[in-house]
Amino acid sequence: MNNFILKIKHIRDSRWFSNLTTSIIIFYASVLGFETLDTVAQPLGDFLHVLDSIVTVYFVIELIIKMAAEDKFLNFFKSGWNIFDFIIVMITLMPLENSSFAAIARLLRIFRVLRLFTARPELKAIIDMLIKAIPSIVDIVILLFIIFYIYAIMGSFIFADMPSGLWDNFLVAMLTLFRVFTFEDWTDVMYETMEVYPWSWTYFVSFIIIAAFVFFNLFIAVIIGEMQKMQDEKMKDEIHEDSKKIDILLKEVRELRKIVDEKKE
Amino acid sequence: MNNFILKIKHIRDSRWFSNLTTSIIIFYASVLGFETLDTVAQPLGDFLHVLDSIVTVYFVIELIIKMAAEDKFLNFFKSGWNIFDFIIVMITLMPLENSSFAAIARLLRIFRVLRLFTARPELKAIIDMLIKAIPSIVDIVILLFIIFYIYAIMGSFIFADMPSGLWDNFLVAMLTLFRVFTFEDWTDVMYETMEVYPWSWTYFVSFIIIAAFVFFNLFIAVIIGEMQKMQDEKMKDEIHEDSKKIDILLKEVRELRKIVDEKKE
Amino acid sequence: MNNFILKIKHIRDSRWFSNLTTSIIIFYASVLGFETLDTVAQPLGDFLHVLDSIVTVYFVIELIIKMAAEDKFLNFFKSGWNIFDFIIVMITLMPLENSSFAAIARLLRIFRVLRLFTARPELKAIIDMLIKAIPSIVDIVILLFIIFYIYAIMGSFIFADMPSGLWDNFLVAMLTLFRVFTFEDWTDVMYETMEVYPWSWTYFVSFIIIAAFVFFNLFIAVIIGEMQKMQDEKMKDEIHEDSKKIDILLKEVRELRKIVDEKKE
Amino acid sequence: MNNFILKIKHIRDSRWFSNLTTSIIIFYASVLGFETLDTVAQPLGDFLHVLDSIVTVYFVIELIIKMAAEDKFLNFFKSGWNIFDFIIVMITLMPLENSSFAAIARLLRIFRVLRLFTARPELKAIIDMLIKAIPSIVDIVILLFIIFYIYAIMGSFIFADMPSGLWDNFLVAMLTLFRVFTFEDWTDVMYETMEVYPWSWTYFVSFIIIAAFVFFNLFIAVIIGEMQKMQDEKMKDEIHEDSKKIDILLKEVRELRKIVDEKKE
Repeated sequence: MNNFILKIKHIRDSRWFSNLTTSIIIFYASVLGFETLDTVAQPLGDFLHVLDSIVTVYFVIELIIKMAAEDKFLNFFKSGWNIFDFIIVMITLMPLENSSFAAIARLLRIFRVLRLFTARPELKAIIDMLIKAIPSIVDIVILLFIIFYIYAIMGSFIFADMPSGLWDNFLVAMLTLFRVFTFEDWTDVMYETMEVYPWSWTYFVSFIIIAAFVFFNLFIAVIIGEMQKMQDEKMKDEIHEDSKKIDILLKEVRELRKIVDEKKE
Repeated sequence: MNNFILKIKHIRDSRWFSNLTTSIIIFYASVLGFETLDTVAQPLGDFLHVLDSIVTVYFVIELIIKMAAEDKFLNFFKSGWNIFDFIIVMITLMPLENSSFAAIARLLRIFRVLRLFTARPELKAIIDMLIKAIPSIVDIVILLFIIFYIYAIMGSFIFADMPSGLWDNFLVAMLTLFRVFTFEDWTDVMYETMEVYPWSWTYFVSFIIIAAFVFFNLFIAVIIGEMQKMQDEKMKDEIHEDSKKIDILLKEVRELRKIVDEKKE
Repeated sequence: MNNFILKIKHIRDSRWFSNLTTSIIIFYASVLGFETLDTVAQPLGDFLHVLDSIVTVYFVIELIIKMAAEDKFLNFFKSGWNIFDFIIVMITLMPLENSSFAAIARLLRIFRVLRLFTARPELKAIIDMLIKAIPSIVDIVILLFIIFYIYAIMGSFIFADMPSGLWDNFLVAMLTLFRVFTFEDWTDVMYETMEVYPWSWTYFVSFIIIAAFVFFNLFIAVIIGEMQKMQDEKMKDEIHEDSKKIDILLKEVRELRKIVDEKKE
Repeated sequence: MNNFILKIKHIRDSRWFSNLTTSIIIFYASVLGFETLDTVAQPLGDFLHVLDSIVTVYFVIELIIKMAAEDKFLNFFKSGWNIFDFIIVMITLMPLENSSFAAIARLLRIFRVLRLFTARPELKAIIDMLIKAIPSIVDIVILLFIIFYIYAIMGSFIFADMPSGLWDNFLVAMLTLFRVFTFEDWTDVMYETMEVYPWSWTYFVSFIIIAAFVFFNLFIAVIIGEMQKMQDEKMKDEIHEDSKKIDILLKEVRELRKIVDEKKE
């Protein structure tokens, strides 16, 4: 039995197993993409149905292999990535195909593509990096949100009667400001309000400058923060090694002096 | 009495006090946001009025606690953030609700959200950082302004008769150039002038390249400037520590040599 | 014969030879550019035909010189840049001028301008740098592609019936998302879908935030990655030199101690 | 006489003199700006004329002071900034006011604002920095130009018959591509060509990706290049100082060993 687990572990960690999973996902993703082209949808109908079942079965087998490779069954759920895999496979196992949720079920199949993250270790690493980067921007996102909030409330107060309806309420104003933030036809929004309030350009120009200034500094803060981490790891290793050597040197020289001093007496 | 001040100081510095303030501000901000939705405005009317009074009272109490926690009353005004808090609370205390400035008074309530900055130390730190970053960009902003100025004057001279009215005077031309700077439908502006002045594309293309080039270098200058500061602080600490050790070593070795030299004679 | 190869090598490596090639390419490129101006196309017709032949002959001669300068003929093809040169010259040698591919043949002449890369060593260096940078972004490009893929499938499922035809199938949806990614009139796309699905703004805003967040981190990852490489090369050299010196010092001091110890006994 | 030159030198280098010049330029610039506002143009007419003369006289006096402060008259022209000042003052001295070039003469007055660069040393420093940054981007600009060139020729060949006239000839195509490069309504350009050539999206998407990729790497290359320079200056100073100390240490220890060795024998 022990031997059997070792074999399964070997399969799980082998490159061909992860490559096989990757290939199946990519092939499946391509078929899903082609299906949306009107001209090929009809003939693919049956083929896709069969492929769907095969992929589902493969995913279940893969999941079982990964579970069986663990020494204890519950260890499998200790990794966030395993839980992620498990949930995606479970969702696509639900028998919704013929229910009233059929359309949603078809849509959910797309998320199988997310399993590429677990199949390719390099993508896993990038996602882990992105997740690690979140705390260093969370406060700047709050700051950006406060700026959006104040401008949105002000906008929905002052510009409430605009015929375009871009300032009807707080939520719509937030969306309009997000649009202004991406510079998307922001002058159209401004010229409309300037017809009623000629000084409203101060509202838009100040928002763009403040939001961009914050965003700009967010960028710099994140870059510098990441670099500090990097330097803390790299540099300290090297310099501290030198520091230790110098400490040893100092100790040696001092002992030497002691000996010489003793001889002198 | 001294004991009482200590207790108040304890309250002021406690995490639950700052969390309570944060929660009240966020709750108040959410209600302000919902109020702008037409469908919920009516029933909220009275509730908001009461909430408004409660928040006002809470803010005054909070301010009194912070003032009482100081050894001397006037020390309170030595911190820029305290003055900021004081002004925001004072503004919302003004009895404008039923005067002709009622609309403005309602609008001013939004700025209470800015008190989040003082309630959350992390946001305070970011704002302080942003303020510290200003001197390092002020001259580049002047440079950018000179470029805008020259192009705006030239534009309002040459393109003054454009039917769109985008170049009517210096201020309007500045706004038009700001629009071009954000790439917002800048070709619409250009194609209009090119119908009268076929070579006016040189004006727009040169403006975009020069302004972007300056902005681009502003970016690099700020990043490199910030990094230099960071390195000056981090690196010097580490390397200077080593340097000191090496200095001590040198001293030790020289003293050792002296002793050996003396023995030799 | 050996002497002849040396002379040819001398020509190949001389600055005037590379400058001559650069000048001819730039002159040829300018003529090609002028040719598209309607007003000058007619009189240039014959001149361009002659110039075309001259440039073709010059390129062949240059290629022969480069081949002759190699000790062994096949060594020429060991450099990727030489193969690049060879293919470009071969393509423009094909006698398509009077065939049905005449238009394509005329178009292919543009790619002669790419020979500037091989004529100017600085450009060669930049292209080599760009090629070297590819592996460090390939995985982030995959990640970006997965995000595009999932949103494109979802979009072509949900928004398939939009009258604008922007979501007709997977490929069209990809193009529409690329447009949204560049912020190009993305609100036009959104407002259309919001008329049918009022909550579809979540689709667009989440796509912009996620894609921008990934792109943003891609940027930082590449910058930091490049800097690490740079620092590994620069810093290690300097610090390791110091480290070696300290190692020698330690050895010297220990030997000194041994001697003193021996004397003591 | 020598004493007189010293006094003039003192004036030239004093802060109040540069501040006076700055103030005059800013005041003059503001008046020039206000003049373009229709409502204030009339009453300012005479005032501006007088102000113009006063500023001209002040600039001439300032130039004479700067010239007189030099030990030799010709030394004045050794500084690029002095020549820059001289040309700007000379241009505005030309008696064009009543000639047919009156409009141009009025326009040329704007360039007096450029004298702010010489009046404020900080701006001088930034301009010097920008000029120094040019060589490090010149080759990447060439590369970007080659990409624009090839796409422009291809575009003016393939899309020549577009009704919008955006691809009429090489120069117009370059301008259209510059517009696409800034993402300005690039889909309008693309959708037009896609009606005739359905695959022309490859042309636009590839151009955006290639040009952005080059530009992106340009950015990184410049940042890293600047940082390398900075590090070469900063770091080497510090580490080399340590290196020197270690060298001295090694020398001392070796001499010590020699002495001990000699004693041993």
